[in-house]
Amino acid sequence: MSRVKSEDERQYLENVFDKLGFTKENGQLLADTLVDADLRGISSHGIQRLDWYRRMIKDGTIVPTREPKVVRELPGTVLVDANQNMGQIAANLAMDKVIEKAKKVGVGIGVVKNSNHFGIAGYYARKALRAGLVGIALTNTRPLVLPTNATQAFLGSNAFAFGFPASPHPFMFDGATSTVASGKIQLADKKGEKLPGQWVVNKDRQLVNDPREAEDILARAAFSDTQIGGGLLTLGGTDVENSNYKGMGNSIVVELLTGILAQGSISADTVRGKHDFSQFVFAFDPSFFGDPDKLKADATAMLNRIRNLKHVPGKTIWVPGDREYKNLANNQKQGVNIDDKTYEEISQIGQELGVNVPAKI
Amino acid sequence: MSRVKSEDERQYLENVFDKLGFTKENGQLLADTLVDADLRGISSHGIQRLDWYRRMIKDGTIVPTREPKVVRELPGTVLVDANQNMGQIAANLAMDKVIEKAKKVGVGIGVVKNSNHFGIAGYYARKALRAGLVGIALTNTRPLVLPTNATQAFLGSNAFAFGFPASPHPFMFDGATSTVASGKIQLADKKGEKLPGQWVVNKDRQLVNDPREAEDILARAAFSDTQIGGGLLTLGGTDVENSNYKGMGNSIVVELLTGILAQGSISADTVRGKHDFSQFVFAFDPSFFGDPDKLKADATAMLNRIRNLKHVPGKTIWVPGDREYKNLANNQKQGVNIDDKTYEEISQIGQELGVNVPAKI
Repeated sequence: MSRVKSEDERQYLENVFDKLGFTKENGQLLADTLVDADLRGISSHGIQRLDWYRRMIKDGTIVPTREPKVVRELPGTVLVDANQNMGQIAANLAMDKVIEKAKKVGVGIGVVKNSNHFGIAGYYARKALRAGLVGIALTNTRPLVLPTNATQAFLGSNAFAFGFPASPHPFMFDGATSTVASGKIQLADKKGEKLPGQWVVNKDRQLVNDPREAEDILARAAFSDTQIGGGLLTLGGTDVENSNYKGMGNSIVVELLTGILAQGSISADTVRGKHDFSQFVFAFDPSFFGDPDKLKADATAMLNRIRNLKHVPGKTIWVPGDREYKNLANNQKQGVNIDDKTYEEISQIGQELGVNVPAKI
Repeated sequence: MSRVKSEDERQYLENVFDKLGFTKENGQLLADTLVDADLRGISSHGIQRLDWYRRMIKDGTIVPTREPKVVRELPGTVLVDANQNMGQIAANLAMDKVIEKAKKVGVGIGVVKNSNHFGIAGYYARKALRAGLVGIALTNTRPLVLPTNATQAFLGSNAFAFGFPASPHPFMFDGATSTVASGKIQLADKKGEKLPGQWVVNKDRQLVNDPREAEDILARAAFSDTQIGGGLLTLGGTDVENSNYKGMGNSIVVELLTGILAQGSISADTVRGKHDFSQFVFAFDPSFFGDPDKLKADATAMLNRIRNLKHVPGKTIWVPGDREYKNLANNQKQGVNIDDKTYEEISQIGQELGVNVPAKI
């Protein structure tokens, strides 16, 4: 694990995206989403994705020179074609349009089709927050998750982000609808730890605690047409008694609002052919419902009451967003963490493209 | 447990609501929501709520003679004041307005304030479906749910319903954001069974398997100012390792979109003073994004693939909605189930008000 200055990471990424054929503006946006994730401690969606992005550019899945475009609009809705470029660029456009709509008619929704990975979902919810709105962003992904009672993966570890104004930082719920994102398993592997919870099962729906075995199951499910069975569990874990079908429900809701509405691939079909992802963004203007300062103060008061509830001695009640804003404050000072494998990857990419690699600090 | 004809249940309820001072139209709506729940096998939200509704009318929490009204509107948004009448009446009005908006600008959202219990959330999502739209409905409730690491209840077992067109019946995800709704615990008690999953913990966050003990904890949390600690667990159960903070996140999202946006009580504060609930409804027109028949066929194909995935031998993969539409088909023929305690309650209410009680069949 090393640390680099986030400004150096940003400069490196902008240079790399420039060399890869993105426009300056698009490259800056892509860099910003990855740096933002790393600053917030969401390393799974930070610079460690670069190598994968680059491979998708090489194989033609991502076409950096194309621009996303608005297919059609109503006063409250927009359909955006990502035109096979990165999801960040199209989702950013879709959220810009949705923000405009919410400012005019009170609410807006947008669907992005022909898209790719779009970084952290929270990035777009925060864009709405900066405009004084409430924001939601969803994406489907690769098929990693088993429905209740199933022994093969089908659903994406689909992401859901929701931001609501609060102090000293917004309420920011941002994560996979599955029990964990697959990045957590890679992290356990890097640390040499067993998987601590009900995260992954094998083809017999038996719990897998070895991270290597789990990674193998997920890699086969996510990237090949020849599943060996097993995958990530839905929120609720192994047992119907713990209502794991509700976790399945949440994942299916995202599939319907992304792949189905966009008439693109559902997560299960991203392993073949087009490899396209789809996104859904949503924003509304809270000031329609009440004085925004009052709403913000009310939300803050509720979240503070949650933080201060009676709790298990020695434990902390973290409200969604608390950890990432704490990471953000720390990492803005001390730089962002980059694991050794990723540092090696970005060094090689830098060498190939003639771009200075961020120095370790 | 007895069965009665659903037509008899409906007639009884309409007569009771008439005697209680509701208008004919509002009484019919209230009856329809309760019969609908019983037909779908969601008995927790059916006629068994009548006794509670009646007590709230007696103590002035519900005022049957008032009409809900639209406070203000934009092309995409509406704020409705339930005017302290039942949530069903106001949420029905809000969803009607939202459907109109979605037909015009593509999308609509509505918030209901000064409200009460609104029956099953799915009822309003289905209203959107019948108009050819995608529908969502949310409500906050009484404080029953402990945030991660907390030892006292604070969040509601807030409901989330989502409906999307599909064949032979819509995708219908409708339930509490907590692991289970409290009705499941009462059901276990009636059957004399131990609680099978990670549902309820005591003041030390230790699992409670005795339904009576669990009911006592929840009754104190939900209806009094003197909590004894403990409550329902969020989806994800007892352990942080199983990401129970995601279940907490889902519940807080609903709190923000209901009690906070409506500037009413958050779930934690419904135990004192106003006892008001708040609701959020949302609909959009899928035909903006593509041919509605194609979207419906695509959704159906995905759901059928889920139902037919490889699975644990002897188990069935139920897609959200499958069970309730199966119940609906059966109960339309064979009548609805009413447990003995509820039958006793409705008999007494019938006697008091001079209304014929539905005969057992």
